[in-house]
Amino acid sequence: MKVLTFGEMMLRLKPEANERILQADSFEAAYGGAEANVAVSLALLGNDSQYLSKFPDNLLGDAAVGTLRRYGVDTSKVLRGAGRLGIYFFEKGASVRSTNVVYDRKDSALALVNATEFDWETLLKGVGMFYFSGITPAISPETEKAVMAACEYCVEHDIPVVCDLNYRGKMWSAEKAQEVMNRLMPYVSICIANDEDFEAALGIKAFDGNMATGISQKESFKEGMMEVTRRYPRCQVVASVLRDIHSVEDSRWMGLLLNNGEFTESAVYPMHVMEGVAAGDAFGAGLVHGLLHDFSGQELIDFAIAASVLKLTIQGDLNLVSESDIRNVMKAGGGASLNR
Amino acid sequence: MKVLTFGEMMLRLKPEANERILQADSFEAAYGGAEANVAVSLALLGNDSQYLSKFPDNLLGDAAVGTLRRYGVDTSKVLRGAGRLGIYFFEKGASVRSTNVVYDRKDSALALVNATEFDWETLLKGVGMFYFSGITPAISPETEKAVMAACEYCVEHDIPVVCDLNYRGKMWSAEKAQEVMNRLMPYVSICIANDEDFEAALGIKAFDGNMATGISQKESFKEGMMEVTRRYPRCQVVASVLRDIHSVEDSRWMGLLLNNGEFTESAVYPMHVMEGVAAGDAFGAGLVHGLLHDFSGQELIDFAIAASVLKLTIQGDLNLVSESDIRNVMKAGGGASLNR
Amino acid sequence: MKVLTFGEMMLRLKPEANERILQADSFEAAYGGAEANVAVSLALLGNDSQYLSKFPDNLLGDAAVGTLRRYGVDTSKVLRGAGRLGIYFFEKGASVRSTNVVYDRKDSALALVNATEFDWETLLKGVGMFYFSGITPAISPETEKAVMAACEYCVEHDIPVVCDLNYRGKMWSAEKAQEVMNRLMPYVSICIANDEDFEAALGIKAFDGNMATGISQKESFKEGMMEVTRRYPRCQVVASVLRDIHSVEDSRWMGLLLNNGEFTESAVYPMHVMEGVAAGDAFGAGLVHGLLHDFSGQELIDFAIAASVLKLTIQGDLNLVSESDIRNVMKAGGGASLNR
Amino acid sequence: MKVLTFGEMMLRLKPEANERILQADSFEAAYGGAEANVAVSLALLGNDSQYLSKFPDNLLGDAAVGTLRRYGVDTSKVLRGAGRLGIYFFEKGASVRSTNVVYDRKDSALALVNATEFDWETLLKGVGMFYFSGITPAISPETEKAVMAACEYCVEHDIPVVCDLNYRGKMWSAEKAQEVMNRLMPYVSICIANDEDFEAALGIKAFDGNMATGISQKESFKEGMMEVTRRYPRCQVVASVLRDIHSVEDSRWMGLLLNNGEFTESAVYPMHVMEGVAAGDAFGAGLVHGLLHDFSGQELIDFAIAASVLKLTIQGDLNLVSESDIRNVMKAGGGASLNR
Amino acid sequence: MKVLTFGEMMLRLKPEANERILQADSFEAAYGGAEANVAVSLALLGNDSQYLSKFPDNLLGDAAVGTLRRYGVDTSKVLRGAGRLGIYFFEKGASVRSTNVVYDRKDSALALVNATEFDWETLLKGVGMFYFSGITPAISPETEKAVMAACEYCVEHDIPVVCDLNYRGKMWSAEKAQEVMNRLMPYVSICIANDEDFEAALGIKAFDGNMATGISQKESFKEGMMEVTRRYPRCQVVASVLRDIHSVEDSRWMGLLLNNGEFTESAVYPMHVMEGVAAGDAFGAGLVHGLLHDFSGQELIDFAIAASVLKLTIQGDLNLVSESDIRNVMKAGGGASLNR
Amino acid sequence: MKVLTFGEMMLRLKPEANERILQADSFEAAYGGAEANVAVSLALLGNDSQYLSKFPDNLLGDAAVGTLRRYGVDTSKVLRGAGRLGIYFFEKGASVRSTNVVYDRKDSALALVNATEFDWETLLKGVGMFYFSGITPAISPETEKAVMAACEYCVEHDIPVVCDLNYRGKMWSAEKAQEVMNRLMPYVSICIANDEDFEAALGIKAFDGNMATGISQKESFKEGMMEVTRRYPRCQVVASVLRDIHSVEDSRWMGLLLNNGEFTESAVYPMHVMEGVAAGDAFGAGLVHGLLHDFSGQELIDFAIAASVLKLTIQGDLNLVSESDIRNVMKAGGGASLNR
Repeated sequence: MKVLTFGEMMLRLKPEANERILQADSFEAAYGGAEANVAVSLALLGNDSQYLSKFPDNLLGDAAVGTLRRYGVDTSKVLRGAGRLGIYFFEKGASVRSTNVVYDRKDSALALVNATEFDWETLLKGVGMFYFSGITPAISPETEKAVMAACEYCVEHDIPVVCDLNYRGKMWSAEKAQEVMNRLMPYVSICIANDEDFEAALGIKAFDGNMATGISQKESFKEGMMEVTRRYPRCQVVASVLRDIHSVEDSRWMGLLLNNGEFTESAVYPMHVMEGVAAGDAFGAGLVHGLLHDFSGQELIDFAIAASVLKLTIQGDLNLVSESDIRNVMKAGGGASLNR
Repeated sequence: MKVLTFGEMMLRLKPEANERILQADSFEAAYGGAEANVAVSLALLGNDSQYLSKFPDNLLGDAAVGTLRRYGVDTSKVLRGAGRLGIYFFEKGASVRSTNVVYDRKDSALALVNATEFDWETLLKGVGMFYFSGITPAISPETEKAVMAACEYCVEHDIPVVCDLNYRGKMWSAEKAQEVMNRLMPYVSICIANDEDFEAALGIKAFDGNMATGISQKESFKEGMMEVTRRYPRCQVVASVLRDIHSVEDSRWMGLLLNNGEFTESAVYPMHVMEGVAAGDAFGAGLVHGLLHDFSGQELIDFAIAASVLKLTIQGDLNLVSESDIRNVMKAGGGASLNR
Repeated sequence: MKVLTFGEMMLRLKPEANERILQADSFEAAYGGAEANVAVSLALLGNDSQYLSKFPDNLLGDAAVGTLRRYGVDTSKVLRGAGRLGIYFFEKGASVRSTNVVYDRKDSALALVNATEFDWETLLKGVGMFYFSGITPAISPETEKAVMAACEYCVEHDIPVVCDLNYRGKMWSAEKAQEVMNRLMPYVSICIANDEDFEAALGIKAFDGNMATGISQKESFKEGMMEVTRRYPRCQVVASVLRDIHSVEDSRWMGLLLNNGEFTESAVYPMHVMEGVAAGDAFGAGLVHGLLHDFSGQELIDFAIAASVLKLTIQGDLNLVSESDIRNVMKAGGGASLNR
Repeated sequence: MKVLTFGEMMLRLKPEANERILQADSFEAAYGGAEANVAVSLALLGNDSQYLSKFPDNLLGDAAVGTLRRYGVDTSKVLRGAGRLGIYFFEKGASVRSTNVVYDRKDSALALVNATEFDWETLLKGVGMFYFSGITPAISPETEKAVMAACEYCVEHDIPVVCDLNYRGKMWSAEKAQEVMNRLMPYVSICIANDEDFEAALGIKAFDGNMATGISQKESFKEGMMEVTRRYPRCQVVASVLRDIHSVEDSRWMGLLLNNGEFTESAVYPMHVMEGVAAGDAFGAGLVHGLLHDFSGQELIDFAIAASVLKLTIQGDLNLVSESDIRNVMKAGGGASLNR
Repeated sequence: MKVLTFGEMMLRLKPEANERILQADSFEAAYGGAEANVAVSLALLGNDSQYLSKFPDNLLGDAAVGTLRRYGVDTSKVLRGAGRLGIYFFEKGASVRSTNVVYDRKDSALALVNATEFDWETLLKGVGMFYFSGITPAISPETEKAVMAACEYCVEHDIPVVCDLNYRGKMWSAEKAQEVMNRLMPYVSICIANDEDFEAALGIKAFDGNMATGISQKESFKEGMMEVTRRYPRCQVVASVLRDIHSVEDSRWMGLLLNNGEFTESAVYPMHVMEGVAAGDAFGAGLVHGLLHDFSGQELIDFAIAASVLKLTIQGDLNLVSESDIRNVMKAGGGASLNR
Repeated sequence: MKVLTFGEMMLRLKPEANERILQADSFEAAYGGAEANVAVSLALLGNDSQYLSKFPDNLLGDAAVGTLRRYGVDTSKVLRGAGRLGIYFFEKGASVRSTNVVYDRKDSALALVNATEFDWETLLKGVGMFYFSGITPAISPETEKAVMAACEYCVEHDIPVVCDLNYRGKMWSAEKAQEVMNRLMPYVSICIANDEDFEAALGIKAFDGNMATGISQKESFKEGMMEVTRRYPRCQVVASVLRDIHSVEDSRWMGLLLNNGEFTESAVYPMHVMEGVAAGDAFGAGLVHGLLHDFSGQELIDFAIAASVLKLTIQGDLNLVSESDIRNVMKAGGGASLNR
């Protein structure tokens, strides 16, 4: 089944190793973005994955397309035109020094898009699932309009809509986010909500903001997830990642799923983190993959969280793992094995 | 004597070695810009060099300041505030493949500046020479206003103004450039005009556009330089670099100077070029250094062109050479020596 | 129109910069191969390009697929299975030190293929042109059989067959090559023959073996090309690259084309070479692109040779250039320009 | 006393830092192999260490020789000839993502050797100890024959034989391994058996396969070691490394020794692992060094395990440490010191 | 207020990543030194920071100056002249393998200085605080004389003197250190004493030498600090870093301050260490910054230790952090946050 | 036949690619030295090559030993002890920017040696040829004494002595050099004299100092070579490299040999130079290899100069080439070939 993801892809520039931007004289260059990361994961897991965005008509847009294609994503629908490719500078933290992100994403080609450039009739033909994150409507009123138009089309044509709330405080206020998401959520069938997303994007209090104690707030998360299904009756699948983050390298992760009224919980993974980004996207992709392949409740959340924690061990925004890599983690002690 | 240069500094991102952007997975990062390059050269040559610009109030702005300070430039007057740091992607060519530049400089902190943020009374106090290039007024109407205000102050207070015409077709049209430069040139005492600058920036026909045969157009250049001095009587020093560019690596360079009615020419340097950027800035800095230290006509142009061709052998935008490095090139056969 | 190329892709391992294998402690890794290089060029030039081969069912096979996809090649037909990915170690020469290649390609997945694994009926459906080089049948008797089967199908279905003779003395003897190519050539419509190919692959004397004086042997090449068209009447397009190679960096290149009885010659390009491999593949791809788009005789050879010499300026086996890059070289003095 | 080690050396290719093969565009290159690693350790510890193998007669064989020589191993007996140098791709894991090895070692020069190429009379003259691992006879029937011939010579001439069982499931089945090792073990005086080696190579049940709980199976290991000495009376020294592996970075290590009927145990080392390979070879070398220098029981196992855990902190296959480095670890808190 | 720091700056050469010197074929190059590190920290925290030393009159001296200027330190007082730039090779340890430093600092320009080259009247005019560490007088009798002359001037002119005892056993014996420090301490107002400094530099028993149990020796440290204030009545501020070092990566840190008779203690930070050098310098700079800005007792020690542990997460000798980075660590759970 | 070379080996630190020291943040590290380079070349060419020096007893000395061993040199006679390893910083020039060397070699272990540490009776037993360059006696009066003692022993025992005059103006004056070399030359049988060596080391006028016109001074060189044989009758083999150096990359090279009264000249090689160091050492090694294997006059000089120009294409001080590499250059057009 074809999955269409819609969002923005940026050039990510990261100083080498653990250097700070102030001392960097080179940057590792990669291309990523929440929905693009999901699209790549879905393709690597063997799904028919298509990505939608608008890229500038220059060499950087070409390079972004190349990244998606390299990992098997269909980019034939990506628009090209005026504007720039958004950039974000990623300064990896260490121990007590927190990771730092400098966004430079204004005036991207997608930010300058007109909603009418997206012909959803054509774009969604043959698509079996539509995926976006809260970042996409936050980019501009036009992208918000485009997401709304896509959602309407999907509901009319029984295409399930997946939304990772993905609140970004540097892009919009909680107030604005709630206003927009409240309009979009009625179209959503599957929702991913992590940490502050509940409150910032939906106004639902589920997490107290203390990243060190996410897992012990499990009951509160459950209550928040129930509230989502109550408010938005179409949305009967809600999934979350719960985390106890002790330092940049040291954290514990678990997945929580509310699936048509039933909760399932994954095991808790103590992690030594190499790169703490895009694990939420990996979780979303794992969840979608599981739904596409009719994984049962426990397998579903186990698969999604295993995909998510694997991302913490991979350099770059893309979760370059196969299904067998994920299943290896799902077995107890997967990290210890060396097959030779 | 203190020299104040005014312009924009950008982050330059260059794929490693000779890679193309399409295949790059890292970029060498450096900070440069026409006037910043001049400021660094002047500092490295031992002058009191101060740089004026506006940088964003983020880590990239800090890094740009750090680059200037590292090589001895006084950055205490640089403004900080909203906006981004402009970026340019530099794809080095080879042989018949031309070098490629992708600009991403819109909405920089300097592009968003208001002319009134510059208090020239304070900024130019104690300054002995003021330097800008044609890029600075091309950035925005406000930077144009700021340059004009600075020029007026300089003329009132007998501070010589140096202008490198530095026409950039990606920033403004020839028509617009001529309109602006015609208003600014009456304040300029020393002018650097290379290749297409004569026609694009001033409307004076001096160069036929064929980069392979610049040197044989020497007489035409001379006529153009004379015309500059006729049109703008305050400007009695005009200097040019003449080039025969055969391929990315292979070119020949010479300097030409009109100084109060007298022409002097440098020798012609056959060059194996490592990086063909910022040689014009190096020439400008060499010229200013010579003027500041009362070099005679022949020494003046010889020093400026030797500084310029040295830049062709240096990685990055900055001409990291000392006066003795330049004098070594001025001697015949400088490249051959190995002192040990 | 869809072009199917059939051949082998290998992992290329090259010491960094100009290091020798003896001192290398890392290798740049890339994936290439004569026909894969052609397929990538065709895709980058905007054609519908499909690649056929057999890759091992391991991470290296995945990476090879990724490279092709990254640059737009359709890899959906690539077989996967037992065997290894061939490797070649590439030690770049300098000046008088010649470039060195160590092949380690035995027992590759393609070398172990059975000809019956290729179902040409399916594979060639909808294909408008079929491309292989002399390397493909040299790999094993089974690949030879597969090429023959493909050729037969093509001729029956009016699909033009392009063959780059590409003789490799390390893979088979001239005697064996001639035996095989004599069987295949009757199916070929467009033939590329460089340097020793005439004699080694076809037994036609056209080049005296002196790489320093290829261009002055133009008349002898012409005679050889005529002889090809006489021997193999279906083949009325023959193209060659003629070279004077003075040292690793310093050479002169021109293209020669016999197109339905008419010779056209390109200009001669003096080159400063960065990496002297795969320029023949770039030439073949340029030729095919021109034929697909009905370029006229002179434009055809000019385009093909410009594509070829551009490859000499690119790192890696793949000619990562666009049509506009090629057209820039076709203009006199393309290497000199810097658009900014 | 001269020690001769006999085995295979390969080119190890590892993506930079923690990259996956799928994203790698360069590989760190090193040359290693179980017995070669032992030979290097012995040389670095000051012993007269000689290595025996067959390398291809090409630049890669030269480079492998160079690596051995660099660290002091005598390579004068290494044969050269047809075949390739085996390669293995090493993808370092992280946290829950396990380390991945892709072997590409078929048809190596050693795999193609004929047993008669080894003239043991000459090769073993003056040798005081002979070392091989279970990998060597697994390579081919000819290497198995060669090992057997060497063992016979050794026993006849009172040269102690050391065997690290080193079972490799990718090279042979447990059934085949047991058949061969049962023929070789009667010649062995000193045996190293880790984890699954007992069962796979000897058919002795000592370890339940759970890498996370090796240390708590100590009594079972002891029973297995006793059984070895019972079955093979010549073999009265048996040593093992016991490990609790929690994740790629996090594990605990201890050494266990049965020496002429007496067990000694080392302390348990909690380790933060940089590279989890070749620690068994380091252990073997530490054990041999201790035996050569008459270390007492406790010192013997302490030295061997300290050498082994040090390897976990070193990049590459070779344990580049000195005796004083090892003794520093043997002191409590060695890792904490900084002498300046 | 201007702070003058006086000491030696060296070229630090470190093998890439965690390589050993024996295998390194490149070194990361940086310029640092105890007092230079302090000067850079003070500048980055916004203070008027000036550095005093003597550098060789060559390119390496230029590069050292450039490093200081880059981060905002005033280098106008640095002397230049004969001699070399000291070098130290830094081999980063891992887990149980300890970090290794090879000094090559003899005959540096500063080691060859004559005390009379420092004109303290001029150098200390306008200076509000003077900082040196025990390394400076250990370099030569002349630097000792220079420090003494500076101290005398400071006391006469009410400039507070800060001394980090910084004992280096490779530079002088404890006996010699005590003799010299006993002469200098009467001039010191603020003293930093870590670990063995108490005993080696002052002959005061406060730490038992066990790096794994520093924190539990807190009372003994307190007694030592009291003794300092009793012996040297001018010195009423004494600060220490207490550490439990378990392995190269794993340690716990806390700060202890005696300020005019009152003890304050920071929280204990469990750290995953990236680079365990120069944390003491970072602590000293944090302390001085706090004193300059009248931080209260608890804030003072909290700020200093937060600055210190941040250094453990930064590559190189320089603590490239801002005040807001430090304050982020002072908040609970600072390392966990990711602001985006 | 065993050749013993005696000299100093240093750590060479070179900024990456063509960077200047001022901008470098890493250095490529290699170990080399005139005589060590010769020793490595001789070993790589298959000779029994032994090196004599004194290295410090630290990790850098170990690394230097490792480099020599890696390429097959016998290091068993190298002394170890107090002192440092000399360092030289190598800043590669480009085009008109000359290459720059910063020596930091004072107080090396060899510079601190006592002549009596060398027991020539033992060291020269079984040696068939002794090689030193003018650098060795320039290091200290003790190394001068050692060279003299070695020479005396050699002459007494009919061991031919080879001396490359290798004048270094940064190490001693021409006056001092002549005084010493005049004492040593009577023991020398084979002498290599390049460029200024004639005059600076021997006081013989043969070269006018213009590096751009060495080849046209051939007759003057010949006269100088004759004068050497007249002054020092034992020395009947004198060889020189003649060069026209136009820029860092562009030069022409030829070899000239006076062998027992007969002159032979090599062809002239136009070179594109990658790294212009140690070509004289490569020449010396080529000459010695030829003499050891009884090459005829023309073959002798052809071989030596081909070895020398090959070095210009190799990174680092060591001429990592085989005899077949050299013979490939000796054939016309060697650089053009690509065997595949």
